[in-house]
Amino acid sequence: MTRQLHLNAFLMNTGHHEASWRLPESDPYAHVELDHYVRLARIAERGTFDSLFLADGPQLWGSVGQRPAGALEPLTLLTALATATEHIGLIATASTSYNSPYNLARKFASLDIISGGRAGWNIVTTAGAEAARNFGLDAEPAHAQRYARAAEFLDVALKLWDSWEDDAIVADKASGVWGDDTKIHPPRHTGTYFSVEGPLNVPRTPQGYPLLVQAGSSENGKAFAARYAEAVFTAQQTIEDAQAFYADLKSRTAAAGRDPDHIKVLPGIVPVIGSTEAEALAHEQVLEDHIVYTHGVGNLERLLQLEPGRLELDAQLPADLPPESAIEGAKSRYTLVVELARRDRLTVRQLIGRLGGGRGHLTFAGTPEQVADKIESWFTRGAADGFNIMPAVLPSGLDTFVDHVVPILRTRGLLRGEYGPRRTLRERYGLPRPANQHVKPVEPAEPTEPVAPVLV
Amino acid sequence: MTRQLHLNAFLMNTGHHEASWRLPESDPYAHVELDHYVRLARIAERGTFDSLFLADGPQLWGSVGQRPAGALEPLTLLTALATATEHIGLIATASTSYNSPYNLARKFASLDIISGGRAGWNIVTTAGAEAARNFGLDAEPAHAQRYARAAEFLDVALKLWDSWEDDAIVADKASGVWGDDTKIHPPRHTGTYFSVEGPLNVPRTPQGYPLLVQAGSSENGKAFAARYAEAVFTAQQTIEDAQAFYADLKSRTAAAGRDPDHIKVLPGIVPVIGSTEAEALAHEQVLEDHIVYTHGVGNLERLLQLEPGRLELDAQLPADLPPESAIEGAKSRYTLVVELARRDRLTVRQLIGRLGGGRGHLTFAGTPEQVADKIESWFTRGAADGFNIMPAVLPSGLDTFVDHVVPILRTRGLLRGEYGPRRTLRERYGLPRPANQHVKPVEPAEPTEPVAPVLV
Repeated sequence: MTRQLHLNAFLMNTGHHEASWRLPESDPYAHVELDHYVRLARIAERGTFDSLFLADGPQLWGSVGQRPAGALEPLTLLTALATATEHIGLIATASTSYNSPYNLARKFASLDIISGGRAGWNIVTTAGAEAARNFGLDAEPAHAQRYARAAEFLDVALKLWDSWEDDAIVADKASGVWGDDTKIHPPRHTGTYFSVEGPLNVPRTPQGYPLLVQAGSSENGKAFAARYAEAVFTAQQTIEDAQAFYADLKSRTAAAGRDPDHIKVLPGIVPVIGSTEAEALAHEQVLEDHIVYTHGVGNLERLLQLEPGRLELDAQLPADLPPESAIEGAKSRYTLVVELARRDRLTVRQLIGRLGGGRGHLTFAGTPEQVADKIESWFTRGAADGFNIMPAVLPSGLDTFVDHVVPILRTRGLLRGEYGPRRTLRERYGLPRPANQHVKPVEPAEPTEPVAPVLV
Repeated sequence: MTRQLHLNAFLMNTGHHEASWRLPESDPYAHVELDHYVRLARIAERGTFDSLFLADGPQLWGSVGQRPAGALEPLTLLTALATATEHIGLIATASTSYNSPYNLARKFASLDIISGGRAGWNIVTTAGAEAARNFGLDAEPAHAQRYARAAEFLDVALKLWDSWEDDAIVADKASGVWGDDTKIHPPRHTGTYFSVEGPLNVPRTPQGYPLLVQAGSSENGKAFAARYAEAVFTAQQTIEDAQAFYADLKSRTAAAGRDPDHIKVLPGIVPVIGSTEAEALAHEQVLEDHIVYTHGVGNLERLLQLEPGRLELDAQLPADLPPESAIEGAKSRYTLVVELARRDRLTVRQLIGRLGGGRGHLTFAGTPEQVADKIESWFTRGAADGFNIMPAVLPSGLDTFVDHVVPILRTRGLLRGEYGPRRTLRERYGLPRPANQHVKPVEPAEPTEPVAPVLV
């Protein structure tokens, strides 16, 4: 079979365009309605996507005046979606800075069991002082410290998920013996950030543990991904940048002693689709016309850590912005926005228009054929193993993608036509089920007769 | 309408009898299978129960050799059950000692929205060093300190749930204004245990906040219940004890400035039902025959904080047990067990037999008529507002209760025959929706003409 595209549906409110909620078709309460997300999940499943994904941060972002604010907690929402779907993977964002390993490992184990092995965890360290102040801190921890904590968090979580061997349950009714205590392995972890005795109170799950996903592209983020991540979401504006990122991450993963094919790279794309290119561009223009620019300026000033009032709508960004190394928040997003503005010599107004669509992800307006071409070209030219599909407007943008782009990808042999038998999320992404760290691999028995080589 | 019984289905693994998993009918993996709980929830809904409930502790209890161990995380499981049911309330246990208010308040708000106002929180402080050691502590915090933290946790959670006024969302597409920032109220809480800036990132929910449930009967527990709880689960062995507890809690609630009718008292009952009394007793005997007594001795020694080997199976408890005040763990459970053993002069073996059935809750074997009589008598004689139904074997015990006891309670006018329109959990329990603490009550307008008195 041809190498297959991995598609992930990034679900967000009424769409990734910040003004999408103002369109006549949009429900401004959709982001806190289960039915909205059930509908989206089922569309994605009709499109035989590998997975769907919810971003998150444990704080209320800025002013509620601007756009639909708040969100259902992702693990809670995904659990409800698990029962409304059958095949699609379910990836929830959760923070290593503002959770405890025991509780979070248990929630993901529970979701993995309830969904039949479809849980994924987008691991974030959570930038910003707003979140920190909801958890007893005055300011956000330094970037490097957040990543150090994340690494220790993962080590503990992996120990917890492996604390039951797969065959720890005996269930011998006659003798009254339910489990085998010798196959239970408490982590007994004592480290810099955590002390966790364990074991977890959930048996090992269908996937062993959730698919591990990561999305930060800073130096710390890439080092973390190379060590732990099995799928990476990334924002890339050009195929050259995407190729460089792809090659870099694969080689870092190999250097970390892992199979580079066991980390899947998925750039984000905001497809704005029309039956002609002109129709697609007109659709994009309607969205841009609904942007409230005064909001955009404030948001941009916050991102760039500038004093309020520093930016002018019809001027370019100031020349004296600090380097990424001085930023303790979302480093890779900072650099991406600054580089985008400088490369295309955008005014603040133009930059806000671009960001309003995809917050730094690649926005692409065109016909279904053009969108499919773009996807195929990145996929076959070493820039992507798949895509994070981020419709500007939801549900209509996802519907259009599934009805018009997916059939083309199927015809080209890049995407399955149906799911087939139920599989785990990790199997969908072509990854092996991880072995339990407490179980020694079984030595292969001596062959009793010569084995013919298998030709692949 | 006659005063109505409140029924809660306490769902636990293959049943509340510790040996239930060994019966031929029982699935020893049931406790980690969604389908098992979906089936139970639907049986309870067929019986028009007000709610169902999951107990919990963030640790693996003792040896996995003894009985099905571990559990799906309750909020995760209840979210899945929310989509499989329509009317029944969903009460999850969560610990104030091992969660942060922001995350937990958000999860309950999300469940309340997803379930259409059916979320309830059984607030526990979590006894035991095992749990403490999963969260960075060497030993469990002292009992009084756990309750002090719980009270501050509740104050913060209530502020978070009230941080959006009910009408904070404007959704004005034309002007591009989504929310009203003046109706968002960050808690800005700084206290002994928590600093939480807020606001919550979830709008106010159908119930305002989840039904608040509590189950500790120690002095600290009762004081806490009088201040916060809207429903209380309790273990009582005799109607006299239950009446005393009921009267005490109602009067404490009144003394705390609350309406005593706004706290519902639900003792636990383990009904073992047979078509004749002899059949019920025989069923009870089968369960007792499956108990592994060597496990029971170890468990009892742990509960009573005795050295291993101190108890003898065919002797009574030692006379020199410490007073409740010396116990830092589950105080009220300790006293209940010791009093039960002394009152009925039980040997350790007999005590284990009694506890195996309901862990200190009232076990009652009889015909459906006798079970209904028991319930009616406690309900009408000031001992209960309803019951926490704890079948010894699941699902069969719940099935039997719903098929044979529920019809009798309905005939007697004590229990609704059908749910009628969808209601919130708090409405099912006859409780008002709480006002938002930031909204002043509207002064009633001067009547423009005389209002006739309403006769009820």
